[in-house]
Amino acid sequence: MEVEQRSKKDDDLNNNNNGSKSNEEEEEISVERIFEASHEIPPPWQKQLTFRALIVSFILAILFTFVVMKLNLTTGIIPSLNISAGLLGFFFVKTWTKILNKAGFLKQPFTRQENTVIQTCVVASSGIAFSGGFGSYLFGMSDIVAKQSAEANTPMNIKNPHLGWMIGFLFVVSFLGLFSVVPLRKIMIVDFKLTYPSGTATAHLINSFHTPQGAKLAKKQVRALGKFFSFSFLWGFFQWFFTSGDDCGFANFPTFGLKAYENKFYFDFSATYVGVGMICPYLINVSLLIGSILSWGIMWPLIGAQKGKWYSADLESSSLHGLQGYKVFIAIAMILGDGLYNFIKVLGRTVFGLYKQFKNKDVLPVNDRSSPATVTISYDDKRRTELFLKDRIPSWFAVTGYVVMAIVSIITVPHIFHQLKWYHILTMYIIAPVLAFCNAYGCGLTDWSLASTYGKLAIFTIGAWAGAANGGVLAGLAACGVMMNIVSTASDLMQDFKTGYMTLASPRSMFLSQAIGTAMGCVISPCVFWLFYKAFPDFGQTGTAYPAPYALVYRNMSILGVEGFSALPKHCLMLCYIFFAAAVIVNGVRDAVGPRWARFIPLPMAMAIPFYIGGYFTIDMCVGSLILFIWRKLNKPKADAYSSAVASGLICGEGIWTLPSSILALAGVKPPICMKFLSTAANLKVDSLLNAS
Amino acid sequence: MEVEQRSKKDDDLNNNNNGSKSNEEEEEISVERIFEASHEIPPPWQKQLTFRALIVSFILAILFTFVVMKLNLTTGIIPSLNISAGLLGFFFVKTWTKILNKAGFLKQPFTRQENTVIQTCVVASSGIAFSGGFGSYLFGMSDIVAKQSAEANTPMNIKNPHLGWMIGFLFVVSFLGLFSVVPLRKIMIVDFKLTYPSGTATAHLINSFHTPQGAKLAKKQVRALGKFFSFSFLWGFFQWFFTSGDDCGFANFPTFGLKAYENKFYFDFSATYVGVGMICPYLINVSLLIGSILSWGIMWPLIGAQKGKWYSADLESSSLHGLQGYKVFIAIAMILGDGLYNFIKVLGRTVFGLYKQFKNKDVLPVNDRSSPATVTISYDDKRRTELFLKDRIPSWFAVTGYVVMAIVSIITVPHIFHQLKWYHILTMYIIAPVLAFCNAYGCGLTDWSLASTYGKLAIFTIGAWAGAANGGVLAGLAACGVMMNIVSTASDLMQDFKTGYMTLASPRSMFLSQAIGTAMGCVISPCVFWLFYKAFPDFGQTGTAYPAPYALVYRNMSILGVEGFSALPKHCLMLCYIFFAAAVIVNGVRDAVGPRWARFIPLPMAMAIPFYIGGYFTIDMCVGSLILFIWRKLNKPKADAYSSAVASGLICGEGIWTLPSSILALAGVKPPICMKFLSTAANLKVDSLLNAS
Repeated sequence: MEVEQRSKKDDDLNNNNNGSKSNEEEEEISVERIFEASHEIPPPWQKQLTFRALIVSFILAILFTFVVMKLNLTTGIIPSLNISAGLLGFFFVKTWTKILNKAGFLKQPFTRQENTVIQTCVVASSGIAFSGGFGSYLFGMSDIVAKQSAEANTPMNIKNPHLGWMIGFLFVVSFLGLFSVVPLRKIMIVDFKLTYPSGTATAHLINSFHTPQGAKLAKKQVRALGKFFSFSFLWGFFQWFFTSGDDCGFANFPTFGLKAYENKFYFDFSATYVGVGMICPYLINVSLLIGSILSWGIMWPLIGAQKGKWYSADLESSSLHGLQGYKVFIAIAMILGDGLYNFIKVLGRTVFGLYKQFKNKDVLPVNDRSSPATVTISYDDKRRTELFLKDRIPSWFAVTGYVVMAIVSIITVPHIFHQLKWYHILTMYIIAPVLAFCNAYGCGLTDWSLASTYGKLAIFTIGAWAGAANGGVLAGLAACGVMMNIVSTASDLMQDFKTGYMTLASPRSMFLSQAIGTAMGCVISPCVFWLFYKAFPDFGQTGTAYPAPYALVYRNMSILGVEGFSALPKHCLMLCYIFFAAAVIVNGVRDAVGPRWARFIPLPMAMAIPFYIGGYFTIDMCVGSLILFIWRKLNKPKADAYSSAVASGLICGEGIWTLPSSILALAGVKPPICMKFLSTAANLKVDSLLNAS
Repeated sequence: MEVEQRSKKDDDLNNNNNGSKSNEEEEEISVERIFEASHEIPPPWQKQLTFRALIVSFILAILFTFVVMKLNLTTGIIPSLNISAGLLGFFFVKTWTKILNKAGFLKQPFTRQENTVIQTCVVASSGIAFSGGFGSYLFGMSDIVAKQSAEANTPMNIKNPHLGWMIGFLFVVSFLGLFSVVPLRKIMIVDFKLTYPSGTATAHLINSFHTPQGAKLAKKQVRALGKFFSFSFLWGFFQWFFTSGDDCGFANFPTFGLKAYENKFYFDFSATYVGVGMICPYLINVSLLIGSILSWGIMWPLIGAQKGKWYSADLESSSLHGLQGYKVFIAIAMILGDGLYNFIKVLGRTVFGLYKQFKNKDVLPVNDRSSPATVTISYDDKRRTELFLKDRIPSWFAVTGYVVMAIVSIITVPHIFHQLKWYHILTMYIIAPVLAFCNAYGCGLTDWSLASTYGKLAIFTIGAWAGAANGGVLAGLAACGVMMNIVSTASDLMQDFKTGYMTLASPRSMFLSQAIGTAMGCVISPCVFWLFYKAFPDFGQTGTAYPAPYALVYRNMSILGVEGFSALPKHCLMLCYIFFAAAVIVNGVRDAVGPRWARFIPLPMAMAIPFYIGGYFTIDMCVGSLILFIWRKLNKPKADAYSSAVASGLICGEGIWTLPSSILALAGVKPPICMKFLSTAANLKVDSLLNAS
């Protein structure tokens, strides 16, 4: 999930060439004039938030929650799903209106404002699946993860997931982010004119859908998406039959031989990650591959050879005092190094931008993205600003909301996590709006949400404050949740406001849709997580289908914060320092040489991910890159127009297959066949066993 | 291989729409005038048979021998490979001349006559792989097959394959066919003007290659072929890694579940048979599927339920007194029923055609194929006849050749098979020219070679004549070989003469090329067979990678002929009668209703093939049909132009992979991994075994 924020920036530039590239030209001849020419008048805000929009949002929210949850729990890499949300929202309502129109019941045509409302609602809802921490802090509290980390697994530091408290917790912490951004809306978008690349790209996409030729292309894209959705779903279904037992099925296919398989190098035939690879920029995929070769190909075999010297030989393979410790802590070091560097960088840029902003109110913020260079206000901007300011949301409403929710939260959260005291939460809620503002502002400049970095900050500070004796590990994780929810929601929703601004959606309908979406997410996400949790018996274990890798990483960060470095095996701290420094230096070099050369230098954050989970999914993602690369060579316009639809189809199809698969698992239906891969020697033994019986 | 003859007829009509369809129109404006317009003069016959042509022929002969041998030994279904032979011959020489041309060494341009010579040589050579009986009578003599058939496995009736006697035997019997057709050349082609659909189609193809736009299309087709050749080869290579041990690898993938797998219903991921399915007409593939459902889906489970009643329960599964007997003998009954019906039909038509021929010498033979309706001789025919008659081969040469070879054969063959006496062979050689004439004539009318039917005739007659006491089973099989070689060669080579006639190739160069090709085949085929035989330890066993299904069928026919019906299990004879009658009746109905409805009635011969081997390859072939069907729906012109090239690539790629794979097997290199499919119960046992060790 660390990579999520970073990939968003680049891939939206990749993806939206269907929307933005063609619209960039249109922009010059004013999008709003085109819409006016076709007599399009934005409906009043109450009519933007239709019943059908909410139903479609609900369906899509479930779909995307499954997809995001699956990604969360397998590798933690979540690509931007905005395109597919926009596309599918358009498709559903368009079909709906078509049917109603034929039946003669159509009351209201489908507008781009309504499309934006759906998009917003789905993003708010599925965002919870990420910021709810089901793959990180929340699940990191469970005994499943605690057992793997060996340290600090006293009952005081364990809280197993349960549907009740998870929903309650999310309800009391998620709405704060929403209230915290509302007053900032005008400043960020109208006054500062921040770009919000993702939000802008989505708006371009939605605007393009509602022009005649855009609608035609969208229809074809939807068809491509549908085709690959079905393929991916059926492929998941087919694979299922061969997965009776561990190490069975295509997901354990030793494509490059058994030796490579042992070192987690194999193509696991996952349509999801091939699709993710198609969406993520080449650099990320290559960085992942380099990271996996560096770690599983070189470092772990070398460190493994020191078994008995550097660490005790009779440890379990999952013990953090052994090889596993090196894997986890070196990954953490790199993630923290990269995070710290970027935190300082983005914070610096934020402060610098603000300073300029206030020094010279008229001048637009300087940033490295394509900000319109004109100071004179265009017709589009005039019209958009006018509508954006029409339906005001009073500031007193937002402030009251924030305070009320904060009080509720301060009272209830210590009841959920008694290790977290009311004064911890109060402190966070006083600082949070500032951090939320920083994050929303930084995100507007760079498209980069630092939510998880702020979360890690909370882990270390609050964890240390609570102290080891008072369940500091758990307190740290809970604090991370409180912080991340506010900060992440703030930047996500500001992106949506930008989209709304550009599609003439009313801020009021947007706000309501976000609130409804958040409420949906607070219920849907825990339920989906619960389904996974209950359905798969070895859920959360390293090396299984759903290892939830970041849960262990987050827990160990918290342990590090509370208990210091005592838990680390020999030489591990040294290696951690090296990799921490390397991450900072590589990032520094990337920024120093400029974007021209930076695209040949791998991203440390991306490199760190396979350190712990292994390289198999990086193979998938590189296959996705390769497919895209060849497709572009063969037919660039077609590849650019359809690749994101195809990728979304691949991701969503297998993602949604997890719904029936987990239901089958809950119902106790076992797949009938095990496709097993045996070495020649093992096979001889097995054959003699099977022939004997 | 029974199906081979039949499919040839239909598929050449399918395949050559690239050649023939477009050339049909050209035909009207005279192909020969077009070639004359480009100042093309056929070179003298000595220059048609170039050194480079022989080298290319040799390479292609090895390639196609591997392919044919693989098909022989897996299912016995051999599609027409004329198209790929023509295409690849063209490609190789074209590349050769291009390189020489660039180097400045080119002495002679590449002509269509040279192309025909290559084609002829390759067909003559790879034809031996089929008529040599490595998948039928020859291997049927071995103890591997004898053990499976339970009856008549005394040493007297067994002769194990050995390189020496196989090459010797082929040399003394294969050239007789060649000499027997030479004198008939003029009668069949110039006087009777028989159509020889396959030969005509090949000629169209070769002619089309040597026109400018034809050469362009051919180049593209070669590229498609090359692409799918590589894919198929690499796929074969990839599969190999997972086949350590029996029942391992993709070839044993229980695609439709383990229950279906037990009844031989699964998609075995064979690129070869998907390609074969693309070449064979839909009707054949559907017939195969119906046959496999009827037998493995319905009949065998029903008969299997009578275990202990109809046959003893403690028999080995391979015993012919048990279920296996029903499978083999019912298949034989259907094959014989179909063969008998068509023998009588084609013989009747031959006699009727000859009768008309001699009654009214000017009138062309009446047949159901598209014979030119004009009696006036066209320019093309005039020019072709002129050149065809220019380079004569004297009849005394052919007759002398036949008599000398016959004497050599009568002296040597009884030394190879001492069960076969000199008078048996003499009798056959007296009758053979008549049968060869009949077969060549019938083939010219219907494109249907009855070689294997004549071979079966020899099995029954000579086997009974020799008698059970004197090794009649082996004598029958050997007689089958003697007969089949003459009769099959006769029709194959007459097809080639037709091709030569239409491409202005000299009969002398054709004859020499056929002779050289036959000599090559007599050495290459046994060597390739020997490689398979030595490389795979469970070669020839039912249920393995190379079951050589027809070897058992032929041996059992011979046993039936010599020992009568005593070997059959209970009710089996009754079932055989029913299926024999059904085969005759279905064929009769097919002919009675006319071609319009006949295409919905399955072919009994095709239905019989899966009876014994199982339905897995029919699934592959239907997948091939399905791919072709969808491709045609999407883009008919492209599918028609490239499907046969793609199919040839798929067939040849995996076919040629058998060369390195058998070398690896000979060298004792075992694949490292076994991809195994276990039921859930078996998997639990295996897991506990593997965890314990």
